[in-house]
Amino acid sequence: MSVSSEHERIARLGARLRSGALAEQDVGIGDDAAFLHPELVVSVDAAVEGVHFLPRFAPWAALARRAAVAALSDLAAMGAAPMGMLSSLILPRGLDDATFDALVEGYAQAADEHGAPVIGGNLAAGTEVSMTTTVLGRTSAPLLRSGARPGDALYVTGAPGAAALGLHALLRERETDDRFARFVEAWRRPWARIDAGLALRGHASAAIDVSDGLLADLGHLCAASGVGATIDIGALPHDATFDAAAAALGRDPVELVLGGGEAYELLFATAGASPIEATRVGTVDAEPGVRLRHADGRVAPATLAGFDHFASGGER
Amino acid sequence: MSVSSEHERIARLGARLRSGALAEQDVGIGDDAAFLHPELVVSVDAAVEGVHFLPRFAPWAALARRAAVAALSDLAAMGAAPMGMLSSLILPRGLDDATFDALVEGYAQAADEHGAPVIGGNLAAGTEVSMTTTVLGRTSAPLLRSGARPGDALYVTGAPGAAALGLHALLRERETDDRFARFVEAWRRPWARIDAGLALRGHASAAIDVSDGLLADLGHLCAASGVGATIDIGALPHDATFDAAAAALGRDPVELVLGGGEAYELLFATAGASPIEATRVGTVDAEPGVRLRHADGRVAPATLAGFDHFASGGER
Repeated sequence: MSVSSEHERIARLGARLRSGALAEQDVGIGDDAAFLHPELVVSVDAAVEGVHFLPRFAPWAALARRAAVAALSDLAAMGAAPMGMLSSLILPRGLDDATFDALVEGYAQAADEHGAPVIGGNLAAGTEVSMTTTVLGRTSAPLLRSGARPGDALYVTGAPGAAALGLHALLRERETDDRFARFVEAWRRPWARIDAGLALRGHASAAIDVSDGLLADLGHLCAASGVGATIDIGALPHDATFDAAAAALGRDPVELVLGGGEAYELLFATAGASPIEATRVGTVDAEPGVRLRHADGRVAPATLAGFDHFASGGER
Repeated sequence: MSVSSEHERIARLGARLRSGALAEQDVGIGDDAAFLHPELVVSVDAAVEGVHFLPRFAPWAALARRAAVAALSDLAAMGAAPMGMLSSLILPRGLDDATFDALVEGYAQAADEHGAPVIGGNLAAGTEVSMTTTVLGRTSAPLLRSGARPGDALYVTGAPGAAALGLHALLRERETDDRFARFVEAWRRPWARIDAGLALRGHASAAIDVSDGLLADLGHLCAASGVGATIDIGALPHDATFDAAAAALGRDPVELVLGGGEAYELLFATAGASPIEATRVGTVDAEPGVRLRHADGRVAPATLAGFDHFASGGER
């Protein structure tokens, strides 16, 4: 009996389901979302209790809002304007109505904030809460993972390690400590970078959202583009407050920035300057693989792996 | 702590999420699927282990194919041509690769058979297997639930009780008994009535797929149309083989035809004759509610309830 990793499984799934019936210009499995009939972008994402969150991490409305935002982030990464969402909820039979109403409220908030009305869904019973969100958007010029070229600059929006730091605080039940409040909030209330994605159309050569972690997602972008990249560790966005909070939890701040998932920031490549507020973190290379440039100028292969739900037996 | 029924919850969900941002001609929550920007139809459905199926009921490929068909059936009910599917799988961490490959195979079969390529999806870990399928289709003339008018004839395709009879055989572990083979196969290998749905455009005044059960789904159609209906029990489609198999399991054949869910047949109303092969089972009335005309001519309110995952503490 073999149990391969999530990424191996996605590769096998793609090999069997590769979308033969799609039109020439369409994109099926393999990017942040599917791209259909030039205008339509669609993607799906699931948040599962005990895997992606514990109920104690946030009020139920925030957990549902977060599930929706995680899915909407794939629209941002494609440079798509949201059209709507479908919410498929699996709920334990005894789940009380107050919790149910909070889940609905969370979806409604995400819908209002991101301009993505909930247009349908499904309810079913199950052992744990799972929230599967399908998002629909449109763009006639999608941002794909596959257009990065050697020499392009690499940028990332926001603070990609903040949510991961917040998650570590939550896992250690330190969320009431003021030092971690900002980062716990980053985990609890992420935003899909819809406006950034729209602004990047026609400017970015490739883009992806940081869901697995900056290095892991950069690896996906490079593989899709047939290129490599070098990240300059000294350029990574983190401040003294972040470093101190990471140290208080015994975590290395750079590892959090490079490896922390669920940030929902956009990582993109561009031949020119960034048209939006973002931090330049590195450069696209012709040589495959992702490398890190350390403070002393040494360049070495990057070794951090992104979080893999199936292979990981870790704390989450 | 209150735990309301699935239908009550859907009503509350609709009240909070009612799609205010949709264009005038669009349909959000409340029909078989959402109808967006005249051409796009989208819906989502989940199949959960222990709720919708047990692993012993069929090979994994058949269970996955069935999950996809259940979702595709909503496109059929809307009179939409499939464009593609997204498959969001939640799988136990130890699930072996042979099972995973079988799930993929099942989706591939459904995709090939129904002309609906899998264009994306998601993998996550969880306690039990759940398969959430988003389907996308297109039509410029959707079949809605809401157009039935008094005097319209009611038709249903195929044999709406067959899958439910097969499920009863499976629950009693009688699937190897030749008397039940045809019905077990009906449960294991349903088909979405895509061609029927397409043929009904411009002919049916209202349509719905039989997923909760003929009477329950007729109730949904009538409520959406602001009408009632009378079903003629003597006209219901079931043959002597069906009746004998039902009797062998201690089930009433008429109750199976009226109450059996997961049939994925189409129930529709039309002012004219049916343009497709289907059985006329009754008539639309102005008086709200669903009634049954018994063999002796007596007409009485229908009392069977469709299956409700949340309210039911039953055998499934």
